[in-house]
Amino acid sequence: MDVTAQHGLYHGIVSGLLADYAHCIDGDDLESWPALFTDTATYRITTAFNHAQGLPIGIIDARNRNMMEDRITALRKANIYEPQRYRHIISVVRLIDAADVASDIIQAEASFIVVRTTIDGSQDLFVSGRYLDEVDISGARPLFAKKLVVLDSDKIDTLLAIPL
Amino acid sequence: MDVTAQHGLYHGIVSGLLADYAHCIDGDDLESWPALFTDTATYRITTAFNHAQGLPIGIIDARNRNMMEDRITALRKANIYEPQRYRHIISVVRLIDAADVASDIIQAEASFIVVRTTIDGSQDLFVSGRYLDEVDISGARPLFAKKLVVLDSDKIDTLLAIPL
Amino acid sequence: MDVTAQHGLYHGIVSGLLADYAHCIDGDDLESWPALFTDTATYRITTAFNHAQGLPIGIIDARNRNMMEDRITALRKANIYEPQRYRHIISVVRLIDAADVASDIIQAEASFIVVRTTIDGSQDLFVSGRYLDEVDISGARPLFAKKLVVLDSDKIDTLLAIPL
Repeated sequence: MDVTAQHGLYHGIVSGLLADYAHCIDGDDLESWPALFTDTATYRITTAFNHAQGLPIGIIDARNRNMMEDRITALRKANIYEPQRYRHIISVVRLIDAADVASDIIQAEASFIVVRTTIDGSQDLFVSGRYLDEVDISGARPLFAKKLVVLDSDKIDTLLAIPL
Repeated sequence: MDVTAQHGLYHGIVSGLLADYAHCIDGDDLESWPALFTDTATYRITTAFNHAQGLPIGIIDARNRNMMEDRITALRKANIYEPQRYRHIISVVRLIDAADVASDIIQAEASFIVVRTTIDGSQDLFVSGRYLDEVDISGARPLFAKKLVVLDSDKIDTLLAIPL
Repeated sequence: MDVTAQHGLYHGIVSGLLADYAHCIDGDDLESWPALFTDTATYRITTAFNHAQGLPIGIIDARNRNMMEDRITALRKANIYEPQRYRHIISVVRLIDAADVASDIIQAEASFIVVRTTIDGSQDLFVSGRYLDEVDISGARPLFAKKLVVLDSDKIDTLLAIPL
């Protein structure tokens, strides 16, 4: 397969994984969310300001999949999140260094927004930002090896306990 | 073609059909909209609440393509919709059971929002939701064999006479 | 490669180029933006109303890449734009006349919104519209040969000095 065809294929792979990811959150199937990551994957949410300054502490900072599973368990036990619905809209995917076809890691970026629907039916733009991802394609199915969520606004809702 | 390449191909096919679909509505080319469906296709709009409860009645419930054509004809005759503009933004596509390469039906899901622009130029988030689609790829061009539109909010605008 | 596979490939190519394009603007890397166009490419921003009326004057009307570079230089010197952040969300891509596999030009269309985040952290829907693009794939990397940005609303923010 030539580089261009590989690029087209990678585009579909990353898009599909991102869609699966959003489906877990928007469909309140949070228990399936960690399974989209490798064992040693990191998952962090930060803000554009913090990211640009190189500040180390994010809003969520999971250093492996176990920590992601713990977060979901804690969320369910605490029952802390409101009965609101989320809807991720993810933009067309940008592949970074896609010419490196020998690697098992695809580096990709995608912009997104999340729309929130509250129980009374009102809707608003909850957050916007971008994903900086590393996708491991060495196994039977693609998995996130690293996911960094960079939010555009520094004003973060205190309800932000779920993954984004 | 191996399953992964098939997956990449299917991703492009479904994305393109969804883009054609949105183009018919946003470009006010509603007459071309039923042609994206098979003769026996169903098209229904419902809400997340009704869908989760298994309630049978949707906002629109077309049981074949003729019913879709009738709706467009009625819309044009009644001239009931306001001179507002719609803009669909459709997220990356999720393929369901994409491993089943032998079938002529692709099952797919995609989240979307619709932004509305009124004649005075103001804009708002009109609806958000997801498409649950079956795409028939047995013919010369892909067509929807089934399309279920599940809206996130139960507060539905009474203007909702057009397809979404 | 058959037409269907070509279609899937083109879909990935155009999606990737659009993602690169948005990345230049949203990441404030405006200097890299003209490099996504051919030397003789045109870039114009107009409104749906003007476009439908065939009115010749757009908001931005660059008739080659030099004019795009000049605009960025002027923007940087004038320092006229506010410290706000933009986020493009681009919908699934529609290929036009994709069956014409012999051509080096892909005609494509994509709907988009831009979300704006101001320095105080508030966010709003800045604009919505669609891209009408011609993508030249004859060279080592795909480039825009023509890009027409059609905004849905006629109420244009006077800050609209940057590309969209």
